Amino acid sequence: MRRFKCRVTVTRLTGYQYVLSPKRVTEVLIIGEQMSAQTDNRLDFFFRPSSVAVIGASRDPEKLGYAVLANLKEGGFPGALYPVNPKADEILGLRAYPTVLDIPGPVDLAIIVIPYPLVPTALEQCGQKGVPAAVVISAGFREAGREGLERELEVVNIARRYGIRLIGPNCLGVIDTNTPLNATFAAGMPPGGPIAFMSQSGALGTAVLDMALAGRIGFSRFVSLGNKADVNEVDLLEAWEDDPGSKVILAYIEGLPDGQRFMEVARRVTRKKPVVAVKSGVTRSGARAVSSHTGSLAGSEAAYHAAFRQAGVIRAESMEHLFDLALAFAYQPLPPGDRIAVVTNAGGPGILATDALEHAGLQLARLRPETVEALMANLPSAASAANPVDVLGDALADRYEHALRLVLADPGVDGVIVIVTPQAMTQIEETAHVVGRVAREHSKPVLGCFMGESRIAAGIAILQQYGIPNYPFPERAAAALAAMVRYRQEREQPSYPPAHFEADRAAVRKVLDEARAQGRVSIGDAEARAILEAYGFPLPPSRLAATPEEAIAAAEDMGYPVVLKIASPDILHKTDVGGVRLNLRSPADVRDAFDLIVYRATRYVPGARIWGCLVQKMVPPGREVLIGMSRDPQFGPLVAFGLGGIYVEALKDVVFRVAPFGPEEAAEMIREIRSYPLLEGVRGEPPADHAAMVDALCRVSQLVTDFPEIVELDINPLVVYEEGRGAVALDMRLVLS
Amino acid sequence: MRRFKCRVTVTRLTGYQYVLSPKRVTEVLIIGEQMSAQTDNRLDFFFRPSSVAVIGASRDPEKLGYAVLANLKEGGFPGALYPVNPKADEILGLRAYPTVLDIPGPVDLAIIVIPYPLVPTALEQCGQKGVPAAVVISAGFREAGREGLERELEVVNIARRYGIRLIGPNCLGVIDTNTPLNATFAAGMPPGGPIAFMSQSGALGTAVLDMALAGRIGFSRFVSLGNKADVNEVDLLEAWEDDPGSKVILAYIEGLPDGQRFMEVARRVTRKKPVVAVKSGVTRSGARAVSSHTGSLAGSEAAYHAAFRQAGVIRAESMEHLFDLALAFAYQPLPPGDRIAVVTNAGGPGILATDALEHAGLQLARLRPETVEALMANLPSAASAANPVDVLGDALADRYEHALRLVLADPGVDGVIVIVTPQAMTQIEETAHVVGRVAREHSKPVLGCFMGESRIAAGIAILQQYGIPNYPFPERAAAALAAMVRYRQEREQPSYPPAHFEADRAAVRKVLDEARAQGRVSIGDAEARAILEAYGFPLPPSRLAATPEEAIAAAEDMGYPVVLKIASPDILHKTDVGGVRLNLRSPADVRDAFDLIVYRATRYVPGARIWGCLVQKMVPPGREVLIGMSRDPQFGPLVAFGLGGIYVEALKDVVFRVAPFGPEEAAEMIREIRSYPLLEGVRGEPPADHAAMVDALCRVSQLVTDFPEIVELDINPLVVYEEGRGAVALDMRLVLS
Repeated sequence: MRRFKCRVTVTRLTGYQYVLSPKRVTEVLIIGEQMSAQTDNRLDFFFRPSSVAVIGASRDPEKLGYAVLANLKEGGFPGALYPVNPKADEILGLRAYPTVLDIPGPVDLAIIVIPYPLVPTALEQCGQKGVPAAVVISAGFREAGREGLERELEVVNIARRYGIRLIGPNCLGVIDTNTPLNATFAAGMPPGGPIAFMSQSGALGTAVLDMALAGRIGFSRFVSLGNKADVNEVDLLEAWEDDPGSKVILAYIEGLPDGQRFMEVARRVTRKKPVVAVKSGVTRSGARAVSSHTGSLAGSEAAYHAAFRQAGVIRAESMEHLFDLALAFAYQPLPPGDRIAVVTNAGGPGILATDALEHAGLQLARLRPETVEALMANLPSAASAANPVDVLGDALADRYEHALRLVLADPGVDGVIVIVTPQAMTQIEETAHVVGRVAREHSKPVLGCFMGESRIAAGIAILQQYGIPNYPFPERAAAALAAMVRYRQEREQPSYPPAHFEADRAAVRKVLDEARAQGRVSIGDAEARAILEAYGFPLPPSRLAATPEEAIAAAEDMGYPVVLKIASPDILHKTDVGGVRLNLRSPADVRDAFDLIVYRATRYVPGARIWGCLVQKMVPPGREVLIGMSRDPQFGPLVAFGLGGIYVEALKDVVFRVAPFGPEEAAEMIREIRSYPLLEGVRGEPPADHAAMVDALCRVSQLVTDFPEIVELDINPLVVYEEGRGAVALDMRLVLS
Repeated sequence: MRRFKCRVTVTRLTGYQYVLSPKRVTEVLIIGEQMSAQTDNRLDFFFRPSSVAVIGASRDPEKLGYAVLANLKEGGFPGALYPVNPKADEILGLRAYPTVLDIPGPVDLAIIVIPYPLVPTALEQCGQKGVPAAVVISAGFREAGREGLERELEVVNIARRYGIRLIGPNCLGVIDTNTPLNATFAAGMPPGGPIAFMSQSGALGTAVLDMALAGRIGFSRFVSLGNKADVNEVDLLEAWEDDPGSKVILAYIEGLPDGQRFMEVARRVTRKKPVVAVKSGVTRSGARAVSSHTGSLAGSEAAYHAAFRQAGVIRAESMEHLFDLALAFAYQPLPPGDRIAVVTNAGGPGILATDALEHAGLQLARLRPETVEALMANLPSAASAANPVDVLGDALADRYEHALRLVLADPGVDGVIVIVTPQAMTQIEETAHVVGRVAREHSKPVLGCFMGESRIAAGIAILQQYGIPNYPFPERAAAALAAMVRYRQEREQPSYPPAHFEADRAAVRKVLDEARAQGRVSIGDAEARAILEAYGFPLPPSRLAATPEEAIAAAEDMGYPVVLKIASPDILHKTDVGGVRLNLRSPADVRDAFDLIVYRATRYVPGARIWGCLVQKMVPPGREVLIGMSRDPQFGPLVAFGLGGIYVEALKDVVFRVAPFGPEEAAEMIREIRSYPLLEGVRGEPPADHAAMVDALCRVSQLVTDFPEIVELDINPLVVYEEGRGAVALDMRLVLS
């Protein structure tokens, strides 16, 4: 068994369920990463193989091996299909082979549905046969505890040895509706469509396929990822990136082992097509359920939030939301802007739509006077020609046609929601045809909101033929439009590179090495200063003084008033031990402070090494912000920004981004905190120096990227002055790995 | 035409679309209120009449008058049915009469579906005939502009003259599935069920009835309120309060003209059964759409939010949410507590459910050791016996039965969500029967989450037979359970009476009358002090000084330091004109401040009447909060609470309640602001005096209730000291109507 270099510190993994030994766990975690680093075209064999072997194909309709073979056959797979079963000559009219080695021609894809003890041998044979891709449906691996985990490692090693790409184990299988290929044991083949779907949960996959069978959703590709022993979300993103049949990629994610690679790939893919994901295990108890489920490590919510956002991945709040967005992205053009019109035959739902649009952050389009006039000329006098356009309860299809055509032609309209309530005279089906036809005349999104269920169903089915997604209530249509608008806006922004500054890395290296040599992982104010200085942070003049006399001399040099802080490698939280004295205005003040600080420090932390006191020039007051960093096991350095003091502590008003990032991202962080108005200035106060905060955030981003051994960092406070006057880092600490 | 006393000031109504004259508008607004004040049993005739006349019944199937008569007949109305049509002898096999006066027997309910010009005469004839209740379906009234409004007033006057209760005009009609009575022109009769539904939008009603026809929802009563010329939401709440057939009341509301009566009645009704409402026109543009729709006045969002909450009305976020909650309330018992268990055959959806429960504020139940043991004895070893209970993908119905029975029997479980994904071996229908049967053995809510659409549909239909509502995704089931838990908790709290203090009303009356006599509506600090003092507010010593010498004398009496503030009836925002000087520590300070303040005030506000300065003892610093009040046109006095200064202004961190209220409500307000941790104390600070804030809020509540002419009030800041040390109102202003 080969050993790999560990990228995740073992101390982070103590909560893990299957801790065998630190080394082992490390291996499990990086398997996917190691293999998928070889981006190759073997993934194609999962979706467009010329030949498929079903290892474990069965004649017993109760067995999964039967279901998989039957699905492949009934699904119309056009290539060669080889049942493998040592006890049968023929299954479902196809010649069966005792092992994969007995198959005469080449095999592009093996589907393995045999009891877990037999899987290693079968895979070994696949390797000997030269099979490039295998789906292991069989369960009994990592999800089944410690022994299962060992088995999974064995299987992965075989795959790696032979260069086989592997989906699963413990999964539902793979579908490609274009090939067509249905290598799952699900009930039936879902309708085709431009949506590619990957799921870490196979059962959720069955529910989703069952929804698809009802006709509302069509898939291009479907993958149940199972335990993700090899192929994971990142591989599929890459495989689907240029697939012309997949217009939108959906993912149900419980955990991502290599968050940084996910971000890197997703950043690229989301520029080409939307990626929408549900990330579960968000809450504390949810995360517990995840780890008892597939044993995946759930990254912290804040990290996922930041990472998805930075990578352009659209986060759906629920599976329902996921499909609501998918339908809009799959079947409708992106809106050129955020100004939405509503055409309705009912006032109440029009109001609901208006509320929903505003709630979703969209604009109610203002129609041009020409549009309003033309509407008025074609609608009864009681109708409303302003947006929402109310064609009235007795509107027939022709009135909808007039209104929709005029509204779509208005250059001030970027998208339309068409509401139809089934009133006495409503021509539901004709209206659906009209909406479908008129929508095709323009390249703006049109979403249906045909409300009801019984009479309205026929209309919804017609809309679907035209590729108009229907939402039962206006709120859901508005949410889908809002996601489209945001996606388009984000995609149109250039990719901003991370900021880069000249920095004295050697100076930092020296401090870190010294601390490490002394066995210290905590870097307090005095040393942290040197590090920040090397990265160009503005700091107040300051000097370490070993005696009261040195402190006075330093104060005289820099000028009063000064601050004294305890300097000790053993004391990180200085205020807790009375280790900080502010506003010292004379030599006597400094002497008293020095003695008091040192006395208290030795009393509160007996045995602490005391270097003396840091004398620091007292800076004028300003607005205090905090910049922090901690390392997320999945995504790496997570930089935090918030107002300092009570705002961060009591109000939890803080935002995160994964480093490295550039000034654009930093500026967004600053604007995102709830207390941002306080930085803009209230009651006539001038705004705080935005550029200085952006600069500080970017320097932290670079520092923690350059030195991965820094696992925590706190600058609290960074005192920010008014626009143009900069900022000063007053207090700081670091923790090393 | 009678004139009524106006309760809503006309200045509030300038945005109203149909302003005829101030007096007229006033009348329109209070019609509903005046009539429904006579709570009577005439409303029963709308739902259980012995005889119904359809005025405008038609033989032409294209006409609404045909649809209404056909619905009544086909709906199985058991009483006498009289078509009224001067041009026909017989319609749908029923004898027709030229007018309602020609009908031989008594008529309990008239349904009027004739062109609007004929409505007044028809209603007049109903009056002569002694008909107690009429539904006017005809449109062409208030919604049709100025002339329509005149017509509506005429119709209402006729109804009032004869004592006829009236639903509509411009509505879809009325349904009672128990009678059964379908007096609408909707397509078909919805299935019966324990849900009563009222809608201000008729079209939304058609959509809802169409949903019901598909079978998921059953109604007891359905009313389309139309223009609410007489019968409104409050009347229906009262009529349905004791209806045994209605277990839950749903309402779609665009605006409530008499919010205070709504609160009074809803407070009572929600103690008996849940009332769930969608209030639309929430956002700014939504509210615009409301006023162009039925011309109802949308109250401010904050007022509706506070009023619904105080009255126990559950606010649904969308129509979808409304029905999700309705189904749970209608068919399942209330949970005894908030500890929820999940039984699932799939890990992924189990995680989603766990996330959703936590997100909804519910607890993931901790199963008793006995339950876990029994589960382990009955489930395969790979199953999870902790909550969520994962019965595994190959679970048949019997495994669900075991698990569900054990979980429901656990005293630590208050409700259960049963998740079923359609996996290869899943017995969907048998499992649905099991869930239905086992749920009946306990009086805890069980909600289904059978996920999928095609294969799963049969299971959902079976669940429905057992009264188990099904939700397509766990998030929606969790939201429904959360609403049930909150409803139960709130219903179990006693009804707290408003606080009552002894107060010197005469003193307040005197100040108000004086201001009014002088034609002033703004009451500044100096006078507002007297008012607050009369209501027992703690205030710092203070005295009005007309000259610098008087100011010095006052300061000497009360002791330095003092504050000087400009005293002028024409200057409300004192700091804007440099009208406040703090921390004056000597006679010289006071003299300088006096002259400077008066000089600046006269310069900034030429012609302002200057009374001199208010000398006020400087109080020690504390935490500053704001208490305010403004009058909402629908709900009356809306009291606001927030942290003072930047928190209210820049962070909009403020909560509202409709006065009068008691200390319990006041305490809730304080805890509800986002910045509450700052009042609790951060960084070792002691908590602020909670009791003093509650006291001040209750005193404001009583003051603004006692004196309706106070339309605005601001105490900003109220300086609050630490626990037990009270609070002091530092600055205050009032505005009179």
